[in-house]
Amino acid sequence: MNFPSKLIEEAVAEFEKLPGIGKKTALRLVLYLLKQDVRRVEQFSQVIEKMRKEIHFCKICHNISDQEICSICSNLKRDASVICVVETIRDVIAIESTNQYHGLYHVLGGVISPIEGIGPDELKIESLIQRCASGEVKEVVMALNPTIEGDTTIFYISKKLQSLPVKITSIARGVSFGGELEYVDDVTLARSIATRMPYENYMVKQSE
Amino acid sequence: MNFPSKLIEEAVAEFEKLPGIGKKTALRLVLYLLKQDVRRVEQFSQVIEKMRKEIHFCKICHNISDQEICSICSNLKRDASVICVVETIRDVIAIESTNQYHGLYHVLGGVISPIEGIGPDELKIESLIQRCASGEVKEVVMALNPTIEGDTTIFYISKKLQSLPVKITSIARGVSFGGELEYVDDVTLARSIATRMPYENYMVKQSE
Repeated sequence: MNFPSKLIEEAVAEFEKLPGIGKKTALRLVLYLLKQDVRRVEQFSQVIEKMRKEIHFCKICHNISDQEICSICSNLKRDASVICVVETIRDVIAIESTNQYHGLYHVLGGVISPIEGIGPDELKIESLIQRCASGEVKEVVMALNPTIEGDTTIFYISKKLQSLPVKITSIARGVSFGGELEYVDDVTLARSIATRMPYENYMVKQSE
Repeated sequence: MNFPSKLIEEAVAEFEKLPGIGKKTALRLVLYLLKQDVRRVEQFSQVIEKMRKEIHFCKICHNISDQEICSICSNLKRDASVICVVETIRDVIAIESTNQYHGLYHVLGGVISPIEGIGPDELKIESLIQRCASGEVKEVVMALNPTIEGDTTIFYISKKLQSLPVKITSIARGVSFGGELEYVDDVTLARSIATRMPYENYMVKQSE
């Protein structure tokens, strides 16, 4: 594409660096901003710059936060005896949106993946073990994505925690609500049969 | 979605205002920027702010420009006797990318659309007529989108220009290269038969 303006070209190039945004979409966004009020665009750019500069990562759970300690860790109403271990901040947001979990979190920052060169030391595993060693924690819920890497990470963490009096659980894996059996992959279906649950349990979990 | 941080929430809200960006995409973009260097994000926001503040609209053709007069209008190598009339800046970029047009442009800023309350006075039609009245212009190429509104606008402009010694042409409309006849809509197909061209012409146009 030939741009009639260097300023536009640079702005398009910046948007294009964002994930999932190609040249045409970038141009559309730039031309949209061009039509907006100068003050609106100033606000856009300043909010984003401020967000990046002032954001903190919680010293306890490594979640994003406006303060040193995030709003979840500093909330006394939450159950500090349960820690839910997740890969990313996005998972925290997803679980929080269900309004079903009232414990704390621990954001690992990824999963163990030898192919991508991510070992246990690249993740926030050490601080998780320290939190569990404090004595307050009774249960660690593993809420990692159901992949080989996720399972490896769960295995590694459970080995590390086995000397501590902490119960390790995992979020239930099985057929999604609304999913159709014939389209479910083999591994999920096989697991959901192997880990079948009594009907009463199922009903309790549904109504909770 | 519940965001653990007000800063993130505000940044997501800003991205969400952009066209075609929903809450999930906005969050993905924000979390991506969060992982980047502070300097990278500063650059992102500053380039966009600068673009909006320093952009000009060409005083002659209303195209976007870094100066008062755009690089196309100020280019002496371009054929000033031909003006291509388009709806938006995006159309200029699209036509420029073909490298087939060497005249000047005129960006109307839209088309006449009574339903949306856009009359001739909302568009840059008056300045087009003034340009054509200068005597230098010999041809006006209408490159508006093939819609009812586009055709109405062409009709309106051609009426306004009829007293001037200017030839009015339109970009060819017909079946797209690579298109399949059976999927072409009726209006296009009917027009492409009614406005059929001699084979020699067709070959010339292809090889030009």
